[in-house]
Amino acid sequence: MRSRAEKLVWRARSTGTIIATAESCTGGLVSAAITEIAGSSHMFDRGFVTYSNEAKQAMLGVRAETLEAFGAVSEAVAGEMAAGALARSGAGLAVSVTGIAGPGGSRHKPEGRVCFGLAQAGRTVVTQTVEFGAQGRSQVREASVGYALDLLLSALDEGA
Amino acid sequence: MRSRAEKLVWRARSTGTIIATAESCTGGLVSAAITEIAGSSHMFDRGFVTYSNEAKQAMLGVRAETLEAFGAVSEAVAGEMAAGALARSGAGLAVSVTGIAGPGGSRHKPEGRVCFGLAQAGRTVVTQTVEFGAQGRSQVREASVGYALDLLLSALDEGA
Repeated sequence: MRSRAEKLVWRARSTGTIIATAESCTGGLVSAAITEIAGSSHMFDRGFVTYSNEAKQAMLGVRAETLEAFGAVSEAVAGEMAAGALARSGAGLAVSVTGIAGPGGSRHKPEGRVCFGLAQAGRTVVTQTVEFGAQGRSQVREASVGYALDLLLSALDEGA
Repeated sequence: MRSRAEKLVWRARSTGTIIATAESCTGGLVSAAITEIAGSSHMFDRGFVTYSNEAKQAMLGVRAETLEAFGAVSEAVAGEMAAGALARSGAGLAVSVTGIAGPGGSRHKPEGRVCFGLAQAGRTVVTQTVEFGAQGRSQVREASVGYALDLLLSALDEGA
């Protein structure tokens, strides 16, 4: 994880990109991984840890209708979270994570399902769903952090 | 750390207290420690990871004058961060962390100095400074997380 975060900090700094995060199930782990790296203050602006639905609405502008229609763990909500983080920060690139770390889940939304969003200034918001499987809360959260860092890295590489 | 976080989640749930966090140098580690515990969604509302000064102002209402007069690592800023997190969330108890995790620091603000704030509905905001010493970035951050969890726990115990 550390090497990925180091690479991200380095790539963001070298491209002059400021990054923001919007997290639900990872609860701050993505921003923690980035800020673990010395020098991250030059490329990390802020993180929104929106654990409750109210927080998603108030902090990121996620619409109540979207939460109602699709649920908090959905690409629709992930997309609005990432767009909200971009709009409400000084960042040029934002990633979002919302999922079911477990324990729990349902037939329709199984444990280990995590939705990601990526918002970039001047580009369409991209969303994705990954099924990490019911491997346990810590493992799902950790895998989600790695995935989020990879999404940010690939966005930086594409933009290069 | 896990046992402290578990105790906190249990105590908050049993007292019906909702918690919010405002973090600078710990970058999301406090909210991550709390949300690592299954069932934390019943007592954790949101976290503000305000890494830049702009984020501290926009997300938490920290005043530019306070930042200018005392600097980001000060009890004055920690107090405003905690008060802002309480006011801008659905929480009844909020903790804030701002410090110099290192590497770096100065004679006036040495590496390992971390300021904490604790805001509780209907009570005066309390602030504290701890010198963790130049033990390294990860260690200072980790020690700060433990300290923040202890502050929350003692606030819950006092209120009991």
